[in-house]
Amino acid sequence: MRPTTRGTRTTIADVAALAGVSTAAVSKVINQRPGVSAEMRRRVLAAADKLGWVPSSAAAALRGAATRTLGLVLRRAPDLLSVDPHFSVFIAGAEDVLGPRGYGLQLHLVGERTGAEEATYRGLAARRAVDGVILTESRLGDPRFELVRQLGLPAVLVGTPWNDDPLPRVEAGPQDRGMRDMTRRLIQLGHRRIAYVGGPEDLVHTVFRREVVTSELSAAGLAPVRLVSTPFAGVEAIRVTEELLALPDRPTAIVFGNDVMAVAGLGAVQRHGVSVPDEVSIVGHDDLPLGELLHPRLSTVRLEVRQLGRAAAIELLRTLGVQDLDEVHVDPPSFIERESTGPPPDDTGAR
Amino acid sequence: MRPTTRGTRTTIADVAALAGVSTAAVSKVINQRPGVSAEMRRRVLAAADKLGWVPSSAAAALRGAATRTLGLVLRRAPDLLSVDPHFSVFIAGAEDVLGPRGYGLQLHLVGERTGAEEATYRGLAARRAVDGVILTESRLGDPRFELVRQLGLPAVLVGTPWNDDPLPRVEAGPQDRGMRDMTRRLIQLGHRRIAYVGGPEDLVHTVFRREVVTSELSAAGLAPVRLVSTPFAGVEAIRVTEELLALPDRPTAIVFGNDVMAVAGLGAVQRHGVSVPDEVSIVGHDDLPLGELLHPRLSTVRLEVRQLGRAAAIELLRTLGVQDLDEVHVDPPSFIERESTGPPPDDTGAR
Repeated sequence: MRPTTRGTRTTIADVAALAGVSTAAVSKVINQRPGVSAEMRRRVLAAADKLGWVPSSAAAALRGAATRTLGLVLRRAPDLLSVDPHFSVFIAGAEDVLGPRGYGLQLHLVGERTGAEEATYRGLAARRAVDGVILTESRLGDPRFELVRQLGLPAVLVGTPWNDDPLPRVEAGPQDRGMRDMTRRLIQLGHRRIAYVGGPEDLVHTVFRREVVTSELSAAGLAPVRLVSTPFAGVEAIRVTEELLALPDRPTAIVFGNDVMAVAGLGAVQRHGVSVPDEVSIVGHDDLPLGELLHPRLSTVRLEVRQLGRAAAIELLRTLGVQDLDEVHVDPPSFIERESTGPPPDDTGAR
Repeated sequence: MRPTTRGTRTTIADVAALAGVSTAAVSKVINQRPGVSAEMRRRVLAAADKLGWVPSSAAAALRGAATRTLGLVLRRAPDLLSVDPHFSVFIAGAEDVLGPRGYGLQLHLVGERTGAEEATYRGLAARRAVDGVILTESRLGDPRFELVRQLGLPAVLVGTPWNDDPLPRVEAGPQDRGMRDMTRRLIQLGHRRIAYVGGPEDLVHTVFRREVVTSELSAAGLAPVRLVSTPFAGVEAIRVTEELLALPDRPTAIVFGNDVMAVAGLGAVQRHGVSVPDEVSIVGHDDLPLGELLHPRLSTVRLEVRQLGRAAAIELLRTLGVQDLDEVHVDPPSFIERESTGPPPDDTGAR
């Protein structure tokens, strides 16, 4: 009969009893310490297997071994997460790698309250709750790189670090390809009045992407109609879109910093009785699954978010010494031309 | 000078040294054991505070104390999570409660592979990785209720359990109100040909919601044009919508099991040159933030997903003995009438 009863957990004592050895011997086997015969080792592992016993991650963590949990601390407010599936896709990618290996992802949404992010990392390290952390969205003056080093927390960054920090990282390179191809294509279609509505000003990728758009326009002798920096929120995108539609030199193409802003902008343009793409072209960023469901289907710069999630998990596991990992593969960003972009209206020059 | 150096963690020995006591004394203070003077207690806590030291959750778990982590195991494939922001909103709600208390949420996406879900719960229990689990989306023949009891894992279910299982739960009651009001409103607008495209057949809420629609139609002497059960995926919604549009008795209203399916259906209808809501009304379910950004704005049955996330976290923490929790509050589902629904076209009777 199994010593486990409903509501109680199998313990090291149960394993020792079934194997006919001491708990100290079980501990030696599990911790791969010397002084255990091959036969004893076999008996202990067979007993552990029979009882479905795995050493508690608590005990493992005390020995400095793995908790089999990675941490992901997002500074976005819960509100923004709920609108933007970007992080759902990223998490899905990480889970592609972690799930089959029995690893979990510990998620913290800390919002932008001062000190909340730092306190969360300190708590994770102090409680030894995770084996390492995945960092996303490097910011200007980002304090996290120094913090995780100070805390001894293994970490991998997704994207380009602020100030060329040497933290291990994964990124989709060449990173500028998608934005560059997209801007060139809009120019080629005949657009001369292009507006760029990017994300928050303190994100490294906001600044980077904006510079790619600006430099490509500049190479064609053009300047953006407007460069706007907003929170990644639908309501902000609607407000900015309405302002752009009211301009005397209304843009013929509006490029948004993510797909949710683009969906909001698309809706706002249509609601004003302005046709997409006949009168205004709309471009998103990320290529989330939703864009393809809309009418017109959303043209967007594809960021391989799912691949980035996988790559980040693989790189962090590699840092932690996990074996037999797949090679990391992240395709460069690319422009996905669907139905929300087209040539500008004929009267463009006359405005 | 602080004994912490870059890359190492503060240990109980550091705290003992700073307080001028033994590590055993620190342990007694932290574990609230007897035999410690008030003065020693004060010195230890001051030293711990000064060094930013908190007892490791590993050590706490070994004593049977809290890991300050709750588990959420989702049987959805990562693919579906990445399309449907439902769980992002739910997680955001849970984080509203957990974040400020320093609790984390450990997330596992196990997909539908046989045995993966059970193995994950067993692993969480065996490794003592979480204090308890939140269960969502009860299924017909759901094995999880018995499993978590067997594993001794505290659990709270969101929604209605299969077979009236007595597990603690949170739900938005009266649960039928939203679907009932929505169906009545469509009938009142003049719709006689209504199709219902629900979620997977094995979910308790799929069956429940479908029955509400059917019974309301029946009370008005009507029957649904079609009742379809599909995975919660955009591509399925598009396929079904196209089939419905091709019917000789085409429905004048299509009700979908979630907002993502409704967005996909809306796009499919518009792509066929059929006007929403003038020719076909579209209704979603959940009221995710995205629906309001579309043109036309999506009419939907609001499920208070965020409130449910909060309530589930609160109830589970209460089960775990956490004090000073807010009261649980979940509003009943309600029909949110926006722009994607209206009266059926005049020629409806002639078809």
